[in-house]
Amino acid sequence: MTIKTIGIIGGGQLGRMLAMAAGRLNFRTVILEPQADSPAAQLANEQIVGAYDDRASLERLASISDVITYEFENVPVESARFLEGLKPVYPPSRALEVAQDRLVEKTFLNQCGIATAGFRAIDSQADLDAALAEFGGAGVLKTRRMGYDGKGQIVFRTGDSAAGAYDRLGGVPLILESFIAFEREVSIIAARAINGHIECYDAAENVHRDGILHTSTLPAEIWEGNAADARSAAIRLLDSLNYVGVIGIEFFVGADSSLIANEIAPRVHNSGHWTEAACVISQFEQHIRAVAGLPLGDPIRHSNCIMQNLIGDDIGELRQWASEKDVFIHLYGKTEPRPGRKMGHVTRLTGRA
Amino acid sequence: MTIKTIGIIGGGQLGRMLAMAAGRLNFRTVILEPQADSPAAQLANEQIVGAYDDRASLERLASISDVITYEFENVPVESARFLEGLKPVYPPSRALEVAQDRLVEKTFLNQCGIATAGFRAIDSQADLDAALAEFGGAGVLKTRRMGYDGKGQIVFRTGDSAAGAYDRLGGVPLILESFIAFEREVSIIAARAINGHIECYDAAENVHRDGILHTSTLPAEIWEGNAADARSAAIRLLDSLNYVGVIGIEFFVGADSSLIANEIAPRVHNSGHWTEAACVISQFEQHIRAVAGLPLGDPIRHSNCIMQNLIGDDIGELRQWASEKDVFIHLYGKTEPRPGRKMGHVTRLTGRA
Repeated sequence: MTIKTIGIIGGGQLGRMLAMAAGRLNFRTVILEPQADSPAAQLANEQIVGAYDDRASLERLASISDVITYEFENVPVESARFLEGLKPVYPPSRALEVAQDRLVEKTFLNQCGIATAGFRAIDSQADLDAALAEFGGAGVLKTRRMGYDGKGQIVFRTGDSAAGAYDRLGGVPLILESFIAFEREVSIIAARAINGHIECYDAAENVHRDGILHTSTLPAEIWEGNAADARSAAIRLLDSLNYVGVIGIEFFVGADSSLIANEIAPRVHNSGHWTEAACVISQFEQHIRAVAGLPLGDPIRHSNCIMQNLIGDDIGELRQWASEKDVFIHLYGKTEPRPGRKMGHVTRLTGRA
Repeated sequence: MTIKTIGIIGGGQLGRMLAMAAGRLNFRTVILEPQADSPAAQLANEQIVGAYDDRASLERLASISDVITYEFENVPVESARFLEGLKPVYPPSRALEVAQDRLVEKTFLNQCGIATAGFRAIDSQADLDAALAEFGGAGVLKTRRMGYDGKGQIVFRTGDSAAGAYDRLGGVPLILESFIAFEREVSIIAARAINGHIECYDAAENVHRDGILHTSTLPAEIWEGNAADARSAAIRLLDSLNYVGVIGIEFFVGADSSLIANEIAPRVHNSGHWTEAACVISQFEQHIRAVAGLPLGDPIRHSNCIMQNLIGDDIGELRQWASEKDVFIHLYGKTEPRPGRKMGHVTRLTGRA
C-alpha cells in the first residue's frame, strides 16, 4: 500500500522532528495530542486535539492515517492495540509493553541474552529489605512504571536505612536494581525495517545532569568490542520484538569494560539528536523510512560531534550559540522555559569522522 | 524588537524550506499564498489564503508578523512597499524592482562594477534590428519582466532573420542581450545581515536542461580568481542595495575566464539547495537568521556534493534515491508531477571538503 499520511501519537519535540523529516519525504503527518498548538503540530499538516486513550480521537487518527507511530513510550498499550486493529502501528504494541514496565523490560533484555543490573520485584517493604540484603545493602529503588529523567527513584548505598522507603514511592509496584559502578554511559540508536533489515548508528557517549541527558558525544570512548556488543544486542532485541522503526538503547560500561543495558526507548531518542547534524540520514528520517516502508538510510557519520540539550533557561543563550561556528541549532517551539524542560538542543561538529 | 513570527510571501518549496528552518529556530511562520494547502503552508504555523496584491491579506500578514520576507522575486513591488509602511520587509523592495526588470537589473549590475553581457532596450522592431546589427547579428531577445526558466526568449545566431520577432514576444518591453560564449555557469549564494555583515557560500557550478536547473556541483571548476571576483561582486551588490537576507547571483564564465553576471534572485535560490546537506547552516537558515536579526552562520562546507533537481516524473525514482548512500532527499509536498514542475531535489555527498 502507498503510504501518504503518517499518524503520530504525541505532540512533543520528537513528534515535531518526525513531522519535519516526514515532510521532506512527501508524507503528510497528523498528530494526536491533547495540548493544542503542540510543538509537533506546529510543523505537521494536522492535529487531532484529543486524549491518547480517547476512542473517537483514535478512530479519527486511524481513518486519516495510512500508518501510525508514536513519539513517547507511555502511549497506553490499550490504545496501540486498538489502533493495530485498524491500521499498521509501528513499533508494535509489544515494544510499549516491554518498555513501560522496568521489570518486564529487564526480564525481556535478559531473555535476549543482554546483560542488565541484577533486579528484584518489590511489592512490599519486606521484599525491599530482603532484596537489599541480597545486593549488599546497595541498589536503586524505582517505580516499575512511568518514571523517567531520574524521577521516582531512591538510591541506597551500603549502610543506608531503607525504613519506610516502600511507602515513600507511593506503594505502587517497584523494582530494586543492583547498583552499577559504571565508568561511562553510552547509547545506540538502531532501526529495523518492515523486511527485517537493521541499521545501527555509532554509539554515543552520554553525560546526564540532574537525571536529564546533558551531552551526547561522538565518537564514544569505548573499545571496538563494546561497540560490537551494543550493535549485536540491538539486533537481537529488534528481531525478538519483530520491531519496525527506530529504538534507543542505553548501556552502562563498567570499570571492567562490561556492557550492561540500562533501558530501552521504543522511539527516536534524545541521545540520537546528533544524527541530524552529523549524518546524511537523521534518526528522524530513519524512523519515517522504516514505518513508511522505504529502504533504511545509511547511518554513516560524516563528522564527530557533541550534542548538548538546552534545558529551561539555557534557551536564553540562543544568540551566543548562533554566533559560534559549526553549531547546528534545533529549538522546539515551546514558549515557556520551565526548569528541567527540554527547550532545544545544539550539535557542535568537532571534526571530520 | 524580539522577532516571534516571520511572514513569508509565497507558498512554494522555497517558502516551505524557509518555514522549516524558521521552526528550528523557534520562529513561527505565516504564509501569504492564494493556493490553499500550499507546499509552504504544510510546514508553516499558518497560511493566509489571499492574492499577493490583496490589501486586506497584506494587512493581515503585517498584523501577525514581526518581520516579512518573500520566496519569489515577482512579488508585486507595490505590495512590498505597502508592507514596508507597516513592518520591516527584508530584502528591501528596491531589490525586487531591480530583479524584476532585466534592463534595470543589468544597468544596476554595471553601476556596481559587475560585468554583464552587452544589452539594449528593445521597444520596437526597429530597435531590435539596430541592436542586432550592433551585436553582429547574434543575441538573446528576452522580455524585460516575468521571464524565468528559459521562457519568453528568442535566440539569434548570426544570419538568423529577426523579422516579426518583436511582435512574437507580445509587444511588451524587451531587451536584447549580446550572446555570451560561456564555458560554464556558476552561482554564488550570499547573505547580508541587518548590521551589514556579509557571508558567502562557495560557488556552485550549474548545469541547466531545457532551461531549468538540473545540477549544482561543489566545488565548481573555476580558478580562485573567479571565486574571489564572484564574492566581491556579491558584496558590492548587497551593500549597494542595503540588502538584508540571502541572494543568489548567477554568472557565466567565459572561455577567457572572464566572469559575467547573468541574473540575480533576491531570495534563497535553487542553486543553493546543496547547503542543507553539505553545510551546518543552510541557505534557508541563513536567510531566516538575517531577516530575524540573528548572527549569520558560518557558510563553511563540510562536504563536496552534487545537487540534482527532481523534475516532473523524476519523483517516481524516490525508492531508488532512498536506497543510495550519502544521498539527502528533499521533496516539496506537491501532489501532481506535471512536466517541468520542480517536485524535489537530492544532494549526494561526494567526499569530505
